[in-house]
Amino acid sequence: MTRPSSPPDQQPSVNCGCFNMSRPCAGTFKTVGTRNSKSAGCRYVSKAAAKTQVEYDYDGPLMKTTVPGPRSQELTKQLGDIQNVGAVNFFCNYEDSRGNYLVDVDGNRMLDIYTQISSIPIGYNHPALLKLMTNPNNLSTFVNRPALGILPPENFPEKITESLLSIAPSGMTRVQTMACGSCSNENAFKSIFIWYRNKERGHNTPSEEELTSCMTNQGPGCPDLSILSFMGGFHGRTLGCLATTHSKVIHKLDIPSFDWPVAPFPRLKYPLEEFSRENAQEEARCLEEVEDLIVKWRQKGKPVAGIVIEPIQSEGGDNHASPDFFRNLRNISRKHGCAFHVDEVQTGGGCTGKFWAHEHWGMDDPAEVVSFSKKLLTGGYYQKDELQADKPYRIFNTWMGDPSKNLFLVEVLNVIRRENLLEEVARSGKALLNGLYELQAQYPGLLSRARGQGTFCAIDVRDAATRDRLLLQARDKGVLLGGCGDQSIRFRPALVFKEYHVHIFLNIFNDVLAQYK
Amino acid sequence: MTRPSSPPDQQPSVNCGCFNMSRPCAGTFKTVGTRNSKSAGCRYVSKAAAKTQVEYDYDGPLMKTTVPGPRSQELTKQLGDIQNVGAVNFFCNYEDSRGNYLVDVDGNRMLDIYTQISSIPIGYNHPALLKLMTNPNNLSTFVNRPALGILPPENFPEKITESLLSIAPSGMTRVQTMACGSCSNENAFKSIFIWYRNKERGHNTPSEEELTSCMTNQGPGCPDLSILSFMGGFHGRTLGCLATTHSKVIHKLDIPSFDWPVAPFPRLKYPLEEFSRENAQEEARCLEEVEDLIVKWRQKGKPVAGIVIEPIQSEGGDNHASPDFFRNLRNISRKHGCAFHVDEVQTGGGCTGKFWAHEHWGMDDPAEVVSFSKKLLTGGYYQKDELQADKPYRIFNTWMGDPSKNLFLVEVLNVIRRENLLEEVARSGKALLNGLYELQAQYPGLLSRARGQGTFCAIDVRDAATRDRLLLQARDKGVLLGGCGDQSIRFRPALVFKEYHVHIFLNIFNDVLAQYK
Repeated sequence: MTRPSSPPDQQPSVNCGCFNMSRPCAGTFKTVGTRNSKSAGCRYVSKAAAKTQVEYDYDGPLMKTTVPGPRSQELTKQLGDIQNVGAVNFFCNYEDSRGNYLVDVDGNRMLDIYTQISSIPIGYNHPALLKLMTNPNNLSTFVNRPALGILPPENFPEKITESLLSIAPSGMTRVQTMACGSCSNENAFKSIFIWYRNKERGHNTPSEEELTSCMTNQGPGCPDLSILSFMGGFHGRTLGCLATTHSKVIHKLDIPSFDWPVAPFPRLKYPLEEFSRENAQEEARCLEEVEDLIVKWRQKGKPVAGIVIEPIQSEGGDNHASPDFFRNLRNISRKHGCAFHVDEVQTGGGCTGKFWAHEHWGMDDPAEVVSFSKKLLTGGYYQKDELQADKPYRIFNTWMGDPSKNLFLVEVLNVIRRENLLEEVARSGKALLNGLYELQAQYPGLLSRARGQGTFCAIDVRDAATRDRLLLQARDKGVLLGGCGDQSIRFRPALVFKEYHVHIFLNIFNDVLAQYK
Repeated sequence: MTRPSSPPDQQPSVNCGCFNMSRPCAGTFKTVGTRNSKSAGCRYVSKAAAKTQVEYDYDGPLMKTTVPGPRSQELTKQLGDIQNVGAVNFFCNYEDSRGNYLVDVDGNRMLDIYTQISSIPIGYNHPALLKLMTNPNNLSTFVNRPALGILPPENFPEKITESLLSIAPSGMTRVQTMACGSCSNENAFKSIFIWYRNKERGHNTPSEEELTSCMTNQGPGCPDLSILSFMGGFHGRTLGCLATTHSKVIHKLDIPSFDWPVAPFPRLKYPLEEFSRENAQEEARCLEEVEDLIVKWRQKGKPVAGIVIEPIQSEGGDNHASPDFFRNLRNISRKHGCAFHVDEVQTGGGCTGKFWAHEHWGMDDPAEVVSFSKKLLTGGYYQKDELQADKPYRIFNTWMGDPSKNLFLVEVLNVIRRENLLEEVARSGKALLNGLYELQAQYPGLLSRARGQGTFCAIDVRDAATRDRLLLQARDKGVLLGGCGDQSIRFRPALVFKEYHVHIFLNIFNDVLAQYK
């Protein structure tokens, strides 16, 4: 990879020019400059927002060098002798990072709106998690990793009940932990295949031919079943998952795959409420295609055992669809006897303002399988009773997750409840989306398609190169963002990202955008 | 699953009848009864072995109930409402477990020769690992899990160098961490495919057709490449790995797979040195078949990009092959331009008496890829320079491993070096294998094919049912063992399993076997 060097307009920026970053003016920014205000200084008037206390947070970004700074560059070179470092942004000082702020090894402190690819639930070094680590009763959970499927620890049912079961999606009482998102989806697919074959057989006693043929990867023991997925979807990168991932060429090129059907995901116009008629037509087109593919693949002898979908396509560009679309898709899956698998690896954990994004669909029976990872700290999936494999060792591996992650999750959920973080997410998400609407109105040739649910927001930039440049410029001013799709910026803050932080971001981002006026 | 209830001959056993388990007679067992000795009491004379101090270890097994005891049964019932518990053996008290002894929730203390499916390197609650947890400088590594591929912590190159690179296989300077064994193999396969396609192309610029076709899983972008694996091999259970796994029907049935070639693994006669001529013939037959398959699959349009093999087939029944076999196989891979991938997930980490089992082959250039997990605590794989993917994000996922596991690994390696554990393994492995030889001589109709390298040993039982019964009987007497293959018992102790522990095991096991006289 060639890491772009800093262009002249991207010099080290100690503050954004409108407020003292090391001690920002807590909600009453003395900055002006929206379309409604022509005063000098910052180009954006942040709405006043009382600073909700995040005790362990910093007051604002603080930049000392461009990013990556010299120490990061040195370490990147060092790591380059061991691994491909083309994707490394910079090296971090996790000890000094706090709440919404990630500190790098050159002493730069950035407002983190990407949070390790959306996987930090309640910010860095949350006191509740640090406290858990100092409790001597917890030590052995970290030091002795069990083979959970055969020798679980005494507190395993209790910790699972306190954590994952306390947030189980509607209709699901069973959960299987796994180490990561890919393993979760791989094993969820396997559960679906096993369920589907038993359904086809009408019993769960395989024939002699099945038992023999499967040992050399052949049918009927290894059947030609398929999972239907959507163009733009992302479900992981191991070979089974990758056959359902269709977001970027770089993930798929040169890797053998399965001949599984790929349906179009609706390409909607935003804001959704302004284009409801066109969007409904687009969704109907996609649903029709789904049914056609199910029929076609059945005729091909590769029946669709399951449909996998994200509630919001994330890696693929933050593509939304309406609750109606998902309800209809769920009905199609039922009609054709396919399992409906909702992949909440990126959308789950509260960032949409509900714990699961699919809860926005308002369904009692949303799915057969819901998979998770990232903000949940442990991977895994919920499933309906009938999806559970009929015999032990069919869904199995050495570790089957990691109980130390369950320990953390219990604390994370306590914090979410105690601090009403889902309400906070709804509130700051609204502020963020409104801010993005204003920005795209202000920069119509540059920004478009602002969209979001909770703080799970995105906005499009006129082209990929400009998007990438914007991300680097924002980073040098102390705001860490991520890209997704071809030309989108995605917002993935932690759940402790308050309205106050939204305004810090908007001020800085507006300052960056001003260069494009 | 129906868990067998205890047969009458399997009542709770507080001691094995020949020594006081709570205070065993440290190396000078006053027990007699091999074929050479007809005195009353135990049926086996343990060779005297000075007790090497394992400070944090217990003195011996201590059984209070049959296993699973009432508390385990209660918890299993509870967990059964959440998960399939058919594979659960019993619930553990990891807090009270120490060294080679696993304590269950009913207060039973067992000598653990299975160690969480071979994944506990230096015993339970090792003081060095507990100490690491109490160091405040380490807290943030546990609390803030980074996306290692983009935002590594400052100490990442240093910790990788201290840990994984310090034990790198010959010829390999690059290592990629992953979360588990399956992810490691999946990503190693992907590296192999990418390398192979770039080699085929002669450059790394894909055609427009490749870029387009891969997005819907079709060729040429998703090419029909294959990985050659061996009957009886085990490389994981995610869909890519599973296509190379051929150890048991239960892993593969009903799961779609790839049409990849499966070669025979030599079925050798033991002890190897007594059957070298027959074994060499069997190995030659298998190698010939490998070459035939490579040619056949190339003709089929599904060229073999890589060969994956375990140095000792583990899950498949502890099947060994000679260093010559592996050297010849490595030459075949070179001749046909296939990457050679040695899967050391179960064999790596010191249990064969060398850090990597493939070191017993005595080669300077043993492989293109070596994958690991289990005792290494983190998953991952080493690779030769040319195997590293040419662009970032081709081998990537959110977490790319877990630095908290690297922290532990540094300490584990310190302990291994400080306490000369590889030498200890060689010593106790010799005692174990000699003990197994004696037992199979004593029980010729019951036991056969004792085999092993280091403490990585196995022995066959006359049939699967007897093997399973033996395992339960040994467990009730305080020895935890695992099965593998159709009718084998596998020994997978931690590296702190000393000669002294071998004799505790042999005494108890002999007592169990006496019932079969």
